[in-house]
Amino acid sequence: DFLEAINEVKPAFGASTGDLERCRLNGMVDCGVRHEHIKQRTMLLAEQVKLSKGSPLLTCLLEGPSSSGKTAMAATVGICSDFPYVKIVSAESMIGLGESTKCAHIVKVFEDAYRSPLSIIILDDIERLVEYVAIGPRFSNIISQTLMVLLKRLPPLGKKLLVIGTTSEVGFLDSIGIRDTFSVTYNVPTLKTEDARKVLQQLNVFSEDDIDSAAEALDDMPIKKVYMLIEMAAQGEHGGKSEAIYSGKEKIDISHFYDCLQDIVRY
Amino acid sequence: DFLEAINEVKPAFGASTGDLERCRLNGMVDCGVRHEHIKQRTMLLAEQVKLSKGSPLLTCLLEGPSSSGKTAMAATVGICSDFPYVKIVSAESMIGLGESTKCAHIVKVFEDAYRSPLSIIILDDIERLVEYVAIGPRFSNIISQTLMVLLKRLPPLGKKLLVIGTTSEVGFLDSIGIRDTFSVTYNVPTLKTEDARKVLQQLNVFSEDDIDSAAEALDDMPIKKVYMLIEMAAQGEHGGKSEAIYSGKEKIDISHFYDCLQDIVRY
Amino acid sequence: DFLEAINEVKPAFGASTGDLERCRLNGMVDCGVRHEHIKQRTMLLAEQVKLSKGSPLLTCLLEGPSSSGKTAMAATVGICSDFPYVKIVSAESMIGLGESTKCAHIVKVFEDAYRSPLSIIILDDIERLVEYVAIGPRFSNIISQTLMVLLKRLPPLGKKLLVIGTTSEVGFLDSIGIRDTFSVTYNVPTLKTEDARKVLQQLNVFSEDDIDSAAEALDDMPIKKVYMLIEMAAQGEHGGKSEAIYSGKEKIDISHFYDCLQDIVRY
Amino acid sequence: DFLEAINEVKPAFGASTGDLERCRLNGMVDCGVRHEHIKQRTMLLAEQVKLSKGSPLLTCLLEGPSSSGKTAMAATVGICSDFPYVKIVSAESMIGLGESTKCAHIVKVFEDAYRSPLSIIILDDIERLVEYVAIGPRFSNIISQTLMVLLKRLPPLGKKLLVIGTTSEVGFLDSIGIRDTFSVTYNVPTLKTEDARKVLQQLNVFSEDDIDSAAEALDDMPIKKVYMLIEMAAQGEHGGKSEAIYSGKEKIDISHFYDCLQDIVRY
Amino acid sequence: DFLEAINEVKPAFGASTGDLERCRLNGMVDCGVRHEHIKQRTMLLAEQVKLSKGSPLLTCLLEGPSSSGKTAMAATVGICSDFPYVKIVSAESMIGLGESTKCAHIVKVFEDAYRSPLSIIILDDIERLVEYVAIGPRFSNIISQTLMVLLKRLPPLGKKLLVIGTTSEVGFLDSIGIRDTFSVTYNVPTLKTEDARKVLQQLNVFSEDDIDSAAEALDDMPIKKVYMLIEMAAQGEHGGKSEAIYSGKEKIDISHFYDCLQDIVRY
Amino acid sequence: DFLEAINEVKPAFGASTGDLERCRLNGMVDCGVRHEHIKQRTMLLAEQVKLSKGSPLLTCLLEGPSSSGKTAMAATVGICSDFPYVKIVSAESMIGLGESTKCAHIVKVFEDAYRSPLSIIILDDIERLVEYVAIGPRFSNIISQTLMVLLKRLPPLGKKLLVIGTTSEVGFLDSIGIRDTFSVTYNVPTLKTEDARKVLQQLNVFSEDDIDSAAEALDDMPIKKVYMLIEMAAQGEHGGKSEAIYSGKEKIDISHFYDCLQDIVRY
Ligand SMILES: Nc1ncnc2c1ncn2[C@@H]1O[C@H](COP(=O)(O)OP(=O)(O)OP(=O)(O)O)[C@@H](O)[C@H]1O
Ligand SMILES: Nc1ncnc2c1ncn2[C@@H]1O[C@H](COP(=O)(O)OP(=O)(O)OP(=O)(O)O)[C@@H](O)[C@H]1O
Ligand SMILES: Nc1ncnc2c1ncn2[C@@H]1O[C@H](COP(=O)(O)OP(=O)(O)OP(=O)(O)O)[C@@H](O)[C@H]1O
Ligand SMILES: Nc1ncnc2c1ncn2[C@@H]1O[C@H](COP(=O)(O)OP(=O)(O)OP(=O)(O)O)[C@@H](O)[C@H]1O
Ligand SMILES: Nc1ncnc2c1ncn2[C@@H]1O[C@H](COP(=O)(O)OP(=O)(O)OP(=O)(O)O)[C@@H](O)[C@H]1O
Ligand SMILES: Nc1ncnc2c1ncn2[C@@H]1O[C@H](COP(=O)(O)OP(=O)(O)OP(=O)(O)O)[C@@H](O)[C@H]1O
Ligand SMILES: [Mg+2]
Ligand SMILES: [Mg+2]
Ligand SMILES: [Mg+2]
Ligand SMILES: [Mg+2]
Ligand SMILES: [Mg+2]
Ligand SMILES: [Mg+2]
Repeated sequence: DFLEAINEVKPAFGASTGDLERCRLNGMVDCGVRHEHIKQRTMLLAEQVKLSKGSPLLTCLLEGPSSSGKTAMAATVGICSDFPYVKIVSAESMIGLGESTKCAHIVKVFEDAYRSPLSIIILDDIERLVEYVAIGPRFSNIISQTLMVLLKRLPPLGKKLLVIGTTSEVGFLDSIGIRDTFSVTYNVPTLKTEDARKVLQQLNVFSEDDIDSAAEALDDMPIKKVYMLIEMAAQGEHGGKSEAIYSGKEKIDISHFYDCLQDIVRY
Repeated sequence: DFLEAINEVKPAFGASTGDLERCRLNGMVDCGVRHEHIKQRTMLLAEQVKLSKGSPLLTCLLEGPSSSGKTAMAATVGICSDFPYVKIVSAESMIGLGESTKCAHIVKVFEDAYRSPLSIIILDDIERLVEYVAIGPRFSNIISQTLMVLLKRLPPLGKKLLVIGTTSEVGFLDSIGIRDTFSVTYNVPTLKTEDARKVLQQLNVFSEDDIDSAAEALDDMPIKKVYMLIEMAAQGEHGGKSEAIYSGKEKIDISHFYDCLQDIVRY
Repeated sequence: DFLEAINEVKPAFGASTGDLERCRLNGMVDCGVRHEHIKQRTMLLAEQVKLSKGSPLLTCLLEGPSSSGKTAMAATVGICSDFPYVKIVSAESMIGLGESTKCAHIVKVFEDAYRSPLSIIILDDIERLVEYVAIGPRFSNIISQTLMVLLKRLPPLGKKLLVIGTTSEVGFLDSIGIRDTFSVTYNVPTLKTEDARKVLQQLNVFSEDDIDSAAEALDDMPIKKVYMLIEMAAQGEHGGKSEAIYSGKEKIDISHFYDCLQDIVRY
Repeated sequence: DFLEAINEVKPAFGASTGDLERCRLNGMVDCGVRHEHIKQRTMLLAEQVKLSKGSPLLTCLLEGPSSSGKTAMAATVGICSDFPYVKIVSAESMIGLGESTKCAHIVKVFEDAYRSPLSIIILDDIERLVEYVAIGPRFSNIISQTLMVLLKRLPPLGKKLLVIGTTSEVGFLDSIGIRDTFSVTYNVPTLKTEDARKVLQQLNVFSEDDIDSAAEALDDMPIKKVYMLIEMAAQGEHGGKSEAIYSGKEKIDISHFYDCLQDIVRY
Repeated sequence: DFLEAINEVKPAFGASTGDLERCRLNGMVDCGVRHEHIKQRTMLLAEQVKLSKGSPLLTCLLEGPSSSGKTAMAATVGICSDFPYVKIVSAESMIGLGESTKCAHIVKVFEDAYRSPLSIIILDDIERLVEYVAIGPRFSNIISQTLMVLLKRLPPLGKKLLVIGTTSEVGFLDSIGIRDTFSVTYNVPTLKTEDARKVLQQLNVFSEDDIDSAAEALDDMPIKKVYMLIEMAAQGEHGGKSEAIYSGKEKIDISHFYDCLQDIVRY
Repeated sequence: DFLEAINEVKPAFGASTGDLERCRLNGMVDCGVRHEHIKQRTMLLAEQVKLSKGSPLLTCLLEGPSSSGKTAMAATVGICSDFPYVKIVSAESMIGLGESTKCAHIVKVFEDAYRSPLSIIILDDIERLVEYVAIGPRFSNIISQTLMVLLKRLPPLGKKLLVIGTTSEVGFLDSIGIRDTFSVTYNVPTLKTEDARKVLQQLNVFSEDDIDSAAEALDDMPIKKVYMLIEMAAQGEHGGKSEAIYSGKEKIDISHFYDCLQDIVRY
């Protein structure tokens, strides 16, 4: 029935294929040289897989703290490559499915890729795919084993495949041996003060005087939290200010900005 | 069958929708500045989600000791917002259901919310939703994974969603990674002496002379226990006094009040 | 099928309803002031639930060493209250049932109570209801979760419910969080020498001279063991004496009494 | 289906009822004063249950090292009492059955006993009934819970029941709380030198000169091993001697007896 | 269905009955006095069971390091006894069966034996029968319990049974209590230098000069490994020599023999 | 149904039979004396099994670090032997199957082999076959037990079988006792500097001047990683160079080579 399951699997709870743009909801800004370098290298792997004769399969892991922009980067590579088959495998499209149905779903994506001459598969949030939880720890061994085998199984003759994984639990992936099955691993970091300054300049919501101290306060924060925090601060203490700020008429009040920052980092 | 299950799920053992008022059985009194501040901030999040373009999904966790008024506060925000869809997800309406039926039930609430332009979902007593027990510890990983994915899944384009969670086991939620998926966390505290005094003044069941020492005795007690204790004391040592006290004809005997306090705190 | 199960549950292996008298097989003697005090307080809770408007649900836990008379006391309160619905939930009537059938059974008792204006439910030997065993430890999490939710779920508007739990494993109930869900906890103790003397005087099976030393030997023994020991001793060393003793014609031989005591306490 | 199961249970792999004699295959010899004392006391319990009005249920545990004669003693009490219903519950008649079928089987035996005015149930080798194994440790919690409830459940009005349990793992029974549910516990010991001498004299297979040293060598050995060892030694070093020895024509060669002893105790 | 299962069980993957000869593939050589002594004693047990009236069931465990010849010895006793029913129970004939089917299979062998006046059952590699693995450790408790009960269950009146078990994990059998259920245990050892010399002399594949040093090198090796090593060495460094050596035309090159030894013992 | 399962098993997700060449995608280069020695010895075992009368079953384990060339070597022996039946058992062809279906699959391969006079079975990546993961650790005991029995079960009279296993988790195989069931174990190592130099000379992609320092940098790297690294480096910093390099027109830029090396070893 596993075999049947494979053929019957249809995307549930929203289609995951083609959702790459959804992963970059706010567009992409320049997040500094380290983000840029990793993107370049991952693009090169796509080219290697396309041209090489000896490497029909390459696998690359993007790891880093929560919200640091891993998924957005993987989606960007997927979009910028001109590969005919690019698919994202995400826990979001498999909510509530049993372990073996999830396996069937994942295998199906690989089987589909094997039919295309050039493919990219994004395994998004691998710890979520394997249902990892730190207590225990617990995770689905069935899904883990499936991933470990798929990450080493060569595509059929003449087909090429690049797999990009993302995770914020690289230590766990290491301990179950999944990290080892990737050819290369890159670390997608949080923003340093200079990265944050660059981002704030592009967003243009602080007055010139405040931008340096704001950037300093954001040191070591992941990009997604930076966006969320700025939205909170843009509302103003009593709400209703955000339109004025995004349209450039007003700037964010720096002391209210610090207040919001506390709500987020207190814990 | 999970998919079917989702469509077949009907509220069991009493409807949870619209039950928000039930969570504030005794009306709401003023519990001091800290409670007030948190309520304001949570209301602001509701506004942010309504107005913002970049944050279609915000998530907020109210944590604090047992009986401190978390559920009542979440219900209050739900009632005071003018959102068309406000639903509370509680273990009370899912007693005796299996793990995956519970998942289906929860997913269904989110799917329904995705169809409304503006929604609030209250995940009440998350440790109870995931069937947590400290020994082991044990909990349902299936439900945990479902919550973690739902708490990060964006609603469809144009829809907005605020999720408010409550818990008295924030340490546990932290250790399985659920707390991290919330954008903001607020701590709903027990009453300090001055908060308790404010509450007692509003209830008006002690004589002026006793109110200070009574408030002091209640220091660090959660609001719900304060109510329960006053009801016990209002009965008098041999019962039958409560009507006289609530109608204002008599006051609570302070030494009987201390007796009752002992029954409750002895352990 | 859980829902069906609930409607199909019928008491198995003997009806538990109305069995309250069965729990006090030997009638009730006066066991000393501490037992008396707890009984009074529990009776007051019954009155509070009946009269109060703010407390439609009160929950009280009677804990104490094995055989100390907890079940008999809970049954006594149930009998003495004039509540229309009093039911005991005991593992004895659920032998051999699966975990979820037990849940259904328990839920059914609560659902029935919700239909009566005034109810008492006795959850007897909670550690046995949740199938607790110290090694592991093991217990049924499904039943535990069900109890925890039921112990906090308010009855419908206008209905009142007092739940009395009993347990000899309060430490365990504490560690899984069930003890916390009770409003009040009382400790039902073993007999002290003076309590034992009082009991022996009522039974009148020792000669005046022996009663003091016998009472001393019984110090710290639970009431049920006291009864059992006296029955053993009443038989005499070679059997056949008990009738003479209970009819008052003879007294228990104190040295044979000590012999029997040894058989019981050696381990 | 549990209820059906109960009615369908028939003794499998040999009928256990009436098998009491089978437990005393070699007849009974006098094993010394300690064995005798325990037998007397257990007989008295049978009388107590028969005559008493307040103790319709008594429970007694015979514990001791492997092969010390516990089962034989329980069977002897069962045979010597003139109770109309005496049944032995043993793992031998439930080989290969699932846990809940075993429960049903055990419950059935109790239900049958409840229909007889006077009954004895022997729970033989309780650790085997609950499928105990020291590693883990593992055991069947379902069966344990069933036993714990049955050991405290009163028979219907007017019926009397004595339960005799046997075990060689009293530490385990203690740790899961089963030992505590027994009213009394007796320890059935191995043979001391003087007990062994008494047994050897009755068997009459050693020469007068050897009997003392042989008895000394047997110090602290359980009765069943003594029998087995004597059978081995009676064969002689090259076999074929046993008939001569049992018929009294020859005596056991003491040095060959020591050889055999070594084979048994080496480990 | 267990009862049905028992009747339906047929030997799968090759018949185990009558396979005794298969366990002694290379015939039997003289392995030294210790092996001989154990064989004698085990033969005596077979006689005891045949003649004795008090011991209708004897059980004997052959334990020792892997490959030391335990199975071969058990098979030899089975062949040399003139018992009408001799059966070997081995994991080889139960590959892939579920735990309870394996139980049914084993029970069936005992039930069959109970119908024969004189039987020998060989429980080969008990740790494999109970699916033991050191990590955890894990094993089948269902099968373990079944074995423990079968090893103590008396055959019907008039029937006699000798059970011979083999194992290389006596420590494990001890810790789960199976070793204790055996009447006697014998240790089948590896070869000492003098045993190895005896074996080499019988095989006659070394030159007179080499036989002593070869025997020394084989000290503490189990018999099966000795055979395997000699076969490797007999091939010669480049293969093709074995026929010459076994026909006696050539002798094994001692330095190549040392090479092969290293391949085997390096780990 | 296990028996049926065995007959129904067909290779899924690509045929594994005949795939031996697939395991040596890039052809074979000379990897140094140690690799060569192991290959020779394994070939000798194939000959021993073919000629010997006493060893119808030989088993050999190739263990070593990940990517060191174990599978390629096993495939080479399989190809170079002239055995009529050579089959590889790999997790790749069993993705998503349940444990017992995997067992059935593996048993089927052995059953097929038993019908051929001369067979080789390659058990590739045994830790993957038994679904091993270090956390826990977890693995399939059913599959482990099946392998342990199959590795000792003799083929039918007249049939010969060589089993070659591969693993990069020899410690784990040791701890569950699988390693012990193999007759011989060989360690397939990473490349030392001199081995790497030999490989680089054969590939001819570095200038004469760079080859020594490149080989030194590759010390202790497994062969597969060496190939992968050279492919990365051959692309050049901005891609597009690989054709020029493989055709011999250009050489790899040594500093870019060091850059790529860092990407791979940083973690
Ligand atoms: N370079 C960027 N420029 C602008 N926005 C970005 C950039 N990188 C990420 N973001 C924004 O941050 C949001 C979250 O980032 P993303 O989900 O990729 O992080 P993540 O590392 O995958 O987080 P998680 O650990 O939760 O999976 C996205 O909505 C995206 O729009
Ligand atoms: N501000 C308030 N004014 C008056 N009553 C309040 C207030 N807050 C809480 N209560 C009362 O306290 C009771 C319990 O509070 P609530 O259930 O919200 O606490 P909680 O923190 O959710 O407890 P738990 O940890 O058990 O979930 C409610 O019945 C409510 O009426
Ligand atoms: N006050 C009393 N007067 C007379 N008999 C009593 C009294 N209390 C208890 N008993 C007797 O003791 C017996 C057992 O007491 P009970 O079962 O209530 O104890 P328990 O604490 O519930 O024990 P357990 O821990 O086993 O549940 C009852 O049969 C009852 O008749
Ligand atoms: N007093 C006795 N006189 C003669 N034989 C006895 C006596 N007691 C026990 N035996 C013999 O010893 C044998 C085994 O004793 P029994 O099975 O009762 O021991 P046990 O303590 O139940 O052992 P286990 O721990 O294995 O259950 C019986 O066959 C019985 O015949
Ligand atoms: N005395 C002997 N003479 C000749 N060959 C022997 C002798 N004993 C054992 N062997 C040979 O050794 C081989 C293996 O021995 P056997 O299988 O009995 O060992 P074992 O102790 O059961 O091993 P394991 O621990 O693997 O079960 C058999 O094929 C048998 O032919
Ligand atoms: N001697 C060799 N010459 C050329 N290429 C080789 C050689 N050995 C291995 N390779 C190449 O290395 C690749 C991987 O080696 P292989 O899969 O055999 O390693 P492994 O030790 O089995 O790895 P794993 O631990 O991942 O199973 C193969 O594609 C093969 O082409
Ligand atoms: Mg992500
Ligand atoms: Mg709450
Ligand atoms: Mg009780
Ligand atoms: Mg016994
Ligand atoms: Mg063997
Ligand atoms: Mg490999």
